[in-house]
Amino acid sequence: MKTTRRNFILQSSLALGALSTAKLQACALPTERKLGVALVGLGNYATRQLAPALQETELCALRGIVTGSPQKAAEWSAKHNIPKQNIYNYDNFDTIRDNPDIDIVYVVLPNSMHAEFTIRAAQAGKHVICEKPMALNSRECEQMIQACKRANVKLGIGYRLYYEPHHLEMRRLGTEKSLGAVKMIESSLGFSMADPKIWRLNKALGGGGAIMDLGVYCIQGVRRTLGELPTAVTGQGYVKDKTVFKDIYEMMMFQLEFPSGAVSNSTTTYSSYVDRLHATTDYRWFQLDPSFNATGASGKTSEGPMNFSKPAFQQTKQMDAFADNVLKNTMPLASGEEGLIDLRIIEAIVRSADTGKKVRLEWK
Amino acid sequence: MKTTRRNFILQSSLALGALSTAKLQACALPTERKLGVALVGLGNYATRQLAPALQETELCALRGIVTGSPQKAAEWSAKHNIPKQNIYNYDNFDTIRDNPDIDIVYVVLPNSMHAEFTIRAAQAGKHVICEKPMALNSRECEQMIQACKRANVKLGIGYRLYYEPHHLEMRRLGTEKSLGAVKMIESSLGFSMADPKIWRLNKALGGGGAIMDLGVYCIQGVRRTLGELPTAVTGQGYVKDKTVFKDIYEMMMFQLEFPSGAVSNSTTTYSSYVDRLHATTDYRWFQLDPSFNATGASGKTSEGPMNFSKPAFQQTKQMDAFADNVLKNTMPLASGEEGLIDLRIIEAIVRSADTGKKVRLEWK
Repeated sequence: MKTTRRNFILQSSLALGALSTAKLQACALPTERKLGVALVGLGNYATRQLAPALQETELCALRGIVTGSPQKAAEWSAKHNIPKQNIYNYDNFDTIRDNPDIDIVYVVLPNSMHAEFTIRAAQAGKHVICEKPMALNSRECEQMIQACKRANVKLGIGYRLYYEPHHLEMRRLGTEKSLGAVKMIESSLGFSMADPKIWRLNKALGGGGAIMDLGVYCIQGVRRTLGELPTAVTGQGYVKDKTVFKDIYEMMMFQLEFPSGAVSNSTTTYSSYVDRLHATTDYRWFQLDPSFNATGASGKTSEGPMNFSKPAFQQTKQMDAFADNVLKNTMPLASGEEGLIDLRIIEAIVRSADTGKKVRLEWK
Repeated sequence: MKTTRRNFILQSSLALGALSTAKLQACALPTERKLGVALVGLGNYATRQLAPALQETELCALRGIVTGSPQKAAEWSAKHNIPKQNIYNYDNFDTIRDNPDIDIVYVVLPNSMHAEFTIRAAQAGKHVICEKPMALNSRECEQMIQACKRANVKLGIGYRLYYEPHHLEMRRLGTEKSLGAVKMIESSLGFSMADPKIWRLNKALGGGGAIMDLGVYCIQGVRRTLGELPTAVTGQGYVKDKTVFKDIYEMMMFQLEFPSGAVSNSTTTYSSYVDRLHATTDYRWFQLDPSFNATGASGKTSEGPMNFSKPAFQQTKQMDAFADNVLKNTMPLASGEEGLIDLRIIEAIVRSADTGKKVRLEWK
């Protein structure tokens, strides 16, 4: 094994032995030993969420950027102290393979570019976090998973809520059944985004609007709470403003049937604000309201309030957990396989809405 | 006009002129001038809700009972001071026509008996309040409306929430659009009632389980908030426990499309507890949580809490409003026509769930 910075860190980490993630995070790595993260795509999410979150991560740090904008490159370089040799554009991106400062590439591009840049990052020998939704369709997801396996790099999805304490509590209540077995779940997420200039409303770039961008959280909230995968799906799609929502659904509703008999009902929309996850057993219930937004959830159950602190940035824990997976060579919780599951469910929902027919799903 | 007790009250009332309902209720009629109500069917709802509510009504009072149980007759007679001549069974019920003490018959029987007893009450010349759901199907509703028209008596449905201040506020916000035009509504009502001994679970008696009993509130909450009637309906039905839910859906979800472009998504179930009405515009929202249960709603909007007092019994206002309609010869707000609308929507939801197809609705 060549003594690169990365291998050094890996060896140090292995020497830490069986320390849990919590303990590892409690003793942050010295700055120079943190895994280096390069952000690909410097839009809103990278600027307002990931870059500040990377100020607080204990196992990884912002060390590189990939952008098509020389102006953004200069701004970010100055603000985040990023050396010239760690700045890439979309053309020379593949030379990142020769940069020992970068361990993890975080793809934060429009959805249509997720597959390409995840595969290019893997081929450059870098571990990859890909923002949600993982890709435009399940075929792309499978290609991404294969590319990362072949390159022997970790693949994670930017599912910040997999590491968020309120959502972990929903999952604990749903799977441990301490308030009874869940029979019905409602989940909804919507924001008013009826602006044709937003790339998310362009089917070629976003892949399908609200269901891709927000519906993925509604699906995730339901199946993660239950700890099950849906076996049948119905979906309904609506468009009010055809001038803005030309070839995508403005609003979708969908129902997922699970092996336990539980059924969920969800709404996702680009027309109005809604944000809630509600699970009900027979006489009891537990819920997050709000649930999915990045500024933080608030939870209560039929027995009383949930008391968890809200981190400044949910992505801090998400990225540190992935760095820990890299350091310990373990499987990310929010894996590419998880991203693929959600894309398969999204495809079933849209097919059901398009055809008016129930779609059945089988899982290996 | 014969000077009966009823006509005397009617004349007194007309003399009150253009007094509003609120003012009328502020000056309650003396006991002997109140309209006499006979309850038909002395089950839970009559015992726990209607009889106590009738202790507080200002325009009507409990004066008669109709029951198949001599034991219940004796108990109610003693408790509510009901004279022997005002006690009927289901066979001699029609002789109520000769009883001047009774102005209003309130039908609180299992759903399968609503049509028969509403029509018999009308034919006996009595005004009728029929508990919800109005009947087993829209055909029966039409027959009931016709019978009451022919007999020149008022017909009202036991829609207590048509008179409840939180629900009136939802309607005001939805129709005045002071927080913006509603784009999406969610409504849910469910209770755990998986007991095959309950008549509501018997299709012949209840007509179809949760959708008839609880779904009607979800429909009402949505269409009353919007002030619109749905033009297309999709529905999904689920049964987990086939030993209990033999020929009815245990849980139903349904989506209603409205002329304004608003769409609703609802869940109703006999398996678990849920109770909420949530309307969202673009950036703002207003909701009741809980919403539909008889013990009272709690409301808030994106701008702050709703502050309305909860009456001890919502049915007090409902019955006084109907008595006021009788006294002033005006159309009840919760009319038979409103009950028919909901049955037509329920039929469309069930047909959609049965066939898997969207059902379109036309309204004259």
